[in-house]
Amino acid sequence: MKLLSDYFDRLLPIVEADLQTVLTPADNAPPLFYRMLHYHMGWVDENGQPVETKRGKRIRPILCLLTCEAGCGDPNAARPAAAAVELIHNFSLLHDDIQDNSPTRRGRTTVWKIWGEAQAINAGDAQFALAFLAIPYLQKESKDPALATHMLKILGETCLELTRGQHLDMLFEHRETVTTGEYLDMIKGKTAALLRGSALLGALAGGCNEEAQQHYALFGRNLGLAFQVLDDILDIWGDPALIGKEAAIDIHQRKKSLPVLYGLERSEELQKLYAAEDPFDDGQVAEIVALLEQIGAHDYAEKLARHYSDETLRHLAEAQPQGEAAWALNELVHFLLHRDR
Amino acid sequence: MKLLSDYFDRLLPIVEADLQTVLTPADNAPPLFYRMLHYHMGWVDENGQPVETKRGKRIRPILCLLTCEAGCGDPNAARPAAAAVELIHNFSLLHDDIQDNSPTRRGRTTVWKIWGEAQAINAGDAQFALAFLAIPYLQKESKDPALATHMLKILGETCLELTRGQHLDMLFEHRETVTTGEYLDMIKGKTAALLRGSALLGALAGGCNEEAQQHYALFGRNLGLAFQVLDDILDIWGDPALIGKEAAIDIHQRKKSLPVLYGLERSEELQKLYAAEDPFDDGQVAEIVALLEQIGAHDYAEKLARHYSDETLRHLAEAQPQGEAAWALNELVHFLLHRDR
Repeated sequence: MKLLSDYFDRLLPIVEADLQTVLTPADNAPPLFYRMLHYHMGWVDENGQPVETKRGKRIRPILCLLTCEAGCGDPNAARPAAAAVELIHNFSLLHDDIQDNSPTRRGRTTVWKIWGEAQAINAGDAQFALAFLAIPYLQKESKDPALATHMLKILGETCLELTRGQHLDMLFEHRETVTTGEYLDMIKGKTAALLRGSALLGALAGGCNEEAQQHYALFGRNLGLAFQVLDDILDIWGDPALIGKEAAIDIHQRKKSLPVLYGLERSEELQKLYAAEDPFDDGQVAEIVALLEQIGAHDYAEKLARHYSDETLRHLAEAQPQGEAAWALNELVHFLLHRDR
Repeated sequence: MKLLSDYFDRLLPIVEADLQTVLTPADNAPPLFYRMLHYHMGWVDENGQPVETKRGKRIRPILCLLTCEAGCGDPNAARPAAAAVELIHNFSLLHDDIQDNSPTRRGRTTVWKIWGEAQAINAGDAQFALAFLAIPYLQKESKDPALATHMLKILGETCLELTRGQHLDMLFEHRETVTTGEYLDMIKGKTAALLRGSALLGALAGGCNEEAQQHYALFGRNLGLAFQVLDDILDIWGDPALIGKEAAIDIHQRKKSLPVLYGLERSEELQKLYAAEDPFDDGQVAEIVALLEQIGAHDYAEKLARHYSDETLRHLAEAQPQGEAAWALNELVHFLLHRDR
């Protein structure tokens, strides 16, 4: 992963500087208005003092910039879009933390926990507006207004698809039965839409033709789908030491992840266990994991992850990426899809 | 107001049809996803059945279309922007109702009360994305991508200013002292930004020159400021029969409205009354109203309302609006600013 790592080292400071440009407080801005956003981005503590903290991995802007370069474009052309997708990602996290009632993110107290729900909803809205402004603000020369309009349209459609996925995710929490098909449609929005958008915007900025754009879009979507299915697998069958969290949290929390939904569609025994209201003890969790393996849920999910992973690489190849960025994109896929193996 | 009323009769169905076009469910959309938005717009009941209900007055899109026509443009050119500003207005109401904990709006149960906070936050986000999509979706031919990009930038900046105002409004609720200057800065964002944006986008679509655009923008901003100051006056000194609500609700609710802030800056007696924790009884409210008059809060607010109202009409005149739409804009100002007199 030397090549990818070099790209990260080179591109991350550029991405971070662009994000800071877009989030530069206007003269009339009350201090707290931007501080909440800077806090969420990992730049300052809750008093507005600079901190070194674990920031997001900035996968989406890197994907956008690499796609642009691999599409034979000047990667600078994708910088406005790269900032925009990262801001959209962070806007959605701000609201997600409220919706999920999450007290922490990346080991830090969430914005709504510090400043209250009402202000956190508003901070997310401000971040949303700034994401759209990233494109006109960073594309200062406005050389190509048709490109900017097209990008803003894709950004809007990406956000709409993201909220559609979020809607389904919240809906499913309160539904008794959810099919695996419905689940895959949900993650297409919630997880895959923004990766699709990042790659597509990069391809557009890179001047790719229509066919290559579509392959990059499908490359991004399948990458998102593979990533999420793998995440569901690793939660249950991953090595806790490697994935950095306890085993089978999804089962403890009765989360309707893909292997569980596959099992619930096929096993009355599992349905009964999930119908009981008491929390699962460790013995029951082990029993459920064994049951899932027996039903074939592990195999099913692995096969699906492999399918999406294959599709990711197929569409990447068909997009005919060029130069070193092509190899870096390949490394990015492996970095994201082979986390524990 | 015959002319304005004719314009409303003619333009409202067009605005409504455009809004419905933008909010047309995509094929993959889960039914409830759009139903929440259609319910909020006043088109359906909570089961998705069509209803006749009190909708918003659609002041902003009408302002946008009239400005375009008065600027000698084809009003059709402003239709994408008109839909966008109304959708932005409604997105902000969806979130505002959660932030204010409001159970009803226009006599109907609010979205968050029916479907929960998490889904309502998401519904607002979806509406936000759709507001940005209104411009590329309704401006189908994309004759002028530079215009579309410029419009999207103004829309983004308008939203940012709107969230800045909302931030201040919520901040002030929890602050002991707020100056009248701070209050006016807050309503510049919360109330005036979107009226400014509506007029500016109309002027832009109408092909006005830079100078006229700036006058229309200031016309819209001052209209918003005058409207809000007047609203604060009417709450305390308006005739309940004419304004359709009880007198002095703002005082009962200890709202930091403009006359109250003016009084608190000048009267220790008022400060003491507001420092006590018990709810005001009717006698105390009458005492406070008398005190405000005595200090000159009523006169101050009236003078300010007149100032903003004069500025509104001055900028409108300087923008040199043309034709019947010019008269209709004048009527709109009088309709909004002379509600009880």
